[in-house]
Amino acid sequence: MSKQEEIIYGLNPVIEAMRGTRQVYELYVAGTSADKRMERLLKLAAERKVPVRQRDKQDLSRLCGTDHHQGIALKVEPYHYVDFEDLIEKAKSEPDPLILLLDSVQDPHNLGALIRSAACAGAHGVVIPKDRAAGVTAAVDKASAGATETIAVAQVTNLSQALEALKAAGFWIYGADGSARGTIYQQNLSGPVALVIGGEGGGIRPLVRKGCDEIVSIPMQGGVNSLNASVAGGIMLFEVVRQRLSSKK
Amino acid sequence: MSKQEEIIYGLNPVIEAMRGTRQVYELYVAGTSADKRMERLLKLAAERKVPVRQRDKQDLSRLCGTDHHQGIALKVEPYHYVDFEDLIEKAKSEPDPLILLLDSVQDPHNLGALIRSAACAGAHGVVIPKDRAAGVTAAVDKASAGATETIAVAQVTNLSQALEALKAAGFWIYGADGSARGTIYQQNLSGPVALVIGGEGGGIRPLVRKGCDEIVSIPMQGGVNSLNASVAGGIMLFEVVRQRLSSKK
Repeated sequence: MSKQEEIIYGLNPVIEAMRGTRQVYELYVAGTSADKRMERLLKLAAERKVPVRQRDKQDLSRLCGTDHHQGIALKVEPYHYVDFEDLIEKAKSEPDPLILLLDSVQDPHNLGALIRSAACAGAHGVVIPKDRAAGVTAAVDKASAGATETIAVAQVTNLSQALEALKAAGFWIYGADGSARGTIYQQNLSGPVALVIGGEGGGIRPLVRKGCDEIVSIPMQGGVNSLNASVAGGIMLFEVVRQRLSSKK
Repeated sequence: MSKQEEIIYGLNPVIEAMRGTRQVYELYVAGTSADKRMERLLKLAAERKVPVRQRDKQDLSRLCGTDHHQGIALKVEPYHYVDFEDLIEKAKSEPDPLILLLDSVQDPHNLGALIRSAACAGAHGVVIPKDRAAGVTAAVDKASAGATETIAVAQVTNLSQALEALKAAGFWIYGADGSARGTIYQQNLSGPVALVIGGEGGGIRPLVRKGCDEIVSIPMQGGVNSLNASVAGGIMLFEVVRQRLSSKK
């Protein structure tokens, strides 16, 4: 496969890609499916004039590099990251800007779940580092249930510099750290907000932490001392949603 | 391996099991590790007089049925589920009873993450159905970061009957469903609370749904219409925590 092509798989990711802005080249289907979403998908393929090819399951598994394709794969152009500056500009034009930044999230399932949660929370974008972090691959697409196609994702070389740019644009930056004394619940999360969530092992790196305006925790109530990174991100994103909804009443 | 033995793996799960109430038979270690938790683990093994065996990585992978063992495995007696009636009694004796019920969660990673979140939220137990749902296996242990050893998990034959028993014990039962008009944020979550979270695909089954006192949603703000089951569970559990902390002020 050339560098201009990539395979994504699974019903939701393929449907979202078919609705999205990426160029789509070929749809691969193994067997038949009673799922209603399959009908919708074939209709979308017809509308976009995408050729549909029958393949057997093993062929698809080889093509996708995994068995978790649900009998569906799509050859598309590579993922479109948005430009970070454009992401800020776009977010700033919204009434309640919300951006999620991820420091060193390396597990594709966590990255996918975090992108999905950001989309569900109505965030205006997700920012990830170029190095030592997972990028948006087919596995991430799948774990996001296709949300990677509906929310803007930007890759940056330097997360600390990205925080500076966000501050200059008027964002207040909250970094998540289990050891922080202040909790997310004690913050007033109105106005432009950027949340920084750390990776699976070490959390936010010291330099990135330094760039945050406020370090906050989710208050643990039991003996086990840490949440899964994607769960922690979801809780923080939806605390922003909760506060904003309640202030609108 | 006999039915009275089981293998668990990964640093956190093995440390938690070593601290827990299960009988432990043998510790397997591949190579050496600079991780400080390794030192703690070997100390625990010495205290509990558990034999430590050196194995190579491939041996461990075969034993564990996965590569994700971090060079650590433990032969233990099978997981101790608690009796459901005991779980209710115990929870009722606490100041703010909180129980999580899972309907048809089949993915071990989701089950593990939900058990971990329940432990972090200070819940008094997790209830899962015996059939058509994941049980507490080594993969669940691993995904829970060992929280399965610190929180009570009960298996029940009939989830609807379990809801009746909880109601009789004074619990108010909230079922999560994305299509509900009322949100979790509009509820007063004081008093004994039971949360019901559905599985990856279909959510809560109709009969279980009928047994809930209130069906509530997490209000979606974007085009993507559903959260990952374990993220949704985490958000609901911590909304209970948030309300209870704020009422204590």
